[in-house]
Amino acid sequence: MIKQISHLGIAVKNLEEAREFYHSVFRLESSDPIIGGDGTIKVSMVKVGNVLIELLQPFGSEGIMAKFLEKRGEGFHHICYEVDDINAEVASLKASGIEVLGEPRPGAEGTSVFLHPRGTHGVLVELVEKE
Amino acid sequence: MIKQISHLGIAVKNLEEAREFYHSVFRLESSDPIIGGDGTIKVSMVKVGNVLIELLQPFGSEGIMAKFLEKRGEGFHHICYEVDDINAEVASLKASGIEVLGEPRPGAEGTSVFLHPRGTHGVLVELVEKE
Repeated sequence: MIKQISHLGIAVKNLEEAREFYHSVFRLESSDPIIGGDGTIKVSMVKVGNVLIELLQPFGSEGIMAKFLEKRGEGFHHICYEVDDINAEVASLKASGIEVLGEPRPGAEGTSVFLHPRGTHGVLVELVEKE
Repeated sequence: MIKQISHLGIAVKNLEEAREFYHSVFRLESSDPIIGGDGTIKVSMVKVGNVLIELLQPFGSEGIMAKFLEKRGEGFHHICYEVDDINAEVASLKASGIEVLGEPRPGAEGTSVFLHPRGTHGVLVELVEKE
């Protein structure tokens, strides 16, 4: 059961420039950057109403975000839906033949997993069950 | 002043298949399709918490959505922020040198305008002032 959109991931080349853009142009404030995931991503969260925008900059030249930027350039990366019970969702998705990328893993927001865009009409989807 | 995210536009090849996907896989319901914009887009809205996902299918072989799908394939198309005063926003954006695409125009949700992704770190942005 999807409760709401938790955040939208947006790939950017330079996190400080992007934060300054959201601040000066949209008057949206962002959190201090942290190094996320497997250590190859620098992240800052922008609050818009009750949804977050996750600005994602590659940290170093390796990793998934560096590859994404090289291939697609700056822009939308993924949408994260908050769910009640991630294990039940994953079981149900797998039963429907949807491509789940690995197993749910604990992260900053809770336990999350990604679904390949091949199975979701072109959108990389993250599901998160919050603590 | 941005109040909240109003909707996310997602380009799909086949609206009925996409609606069925959101219904059966995510248990998210969508509105009956309407022909939108300049008559080249078929649209259905999916409600997720207090944000909408706007599923956008080309209607006919011409138009902006047909071109988008041809170039990029299915996936994220734009983000729409609700603002208080769209004329004030447009004046401020133009003063900041942000590329505003045309003038605000009345539409289904209110009066809206788009910002070119060149000026927004890679994301096509719509601003809407609701009635």
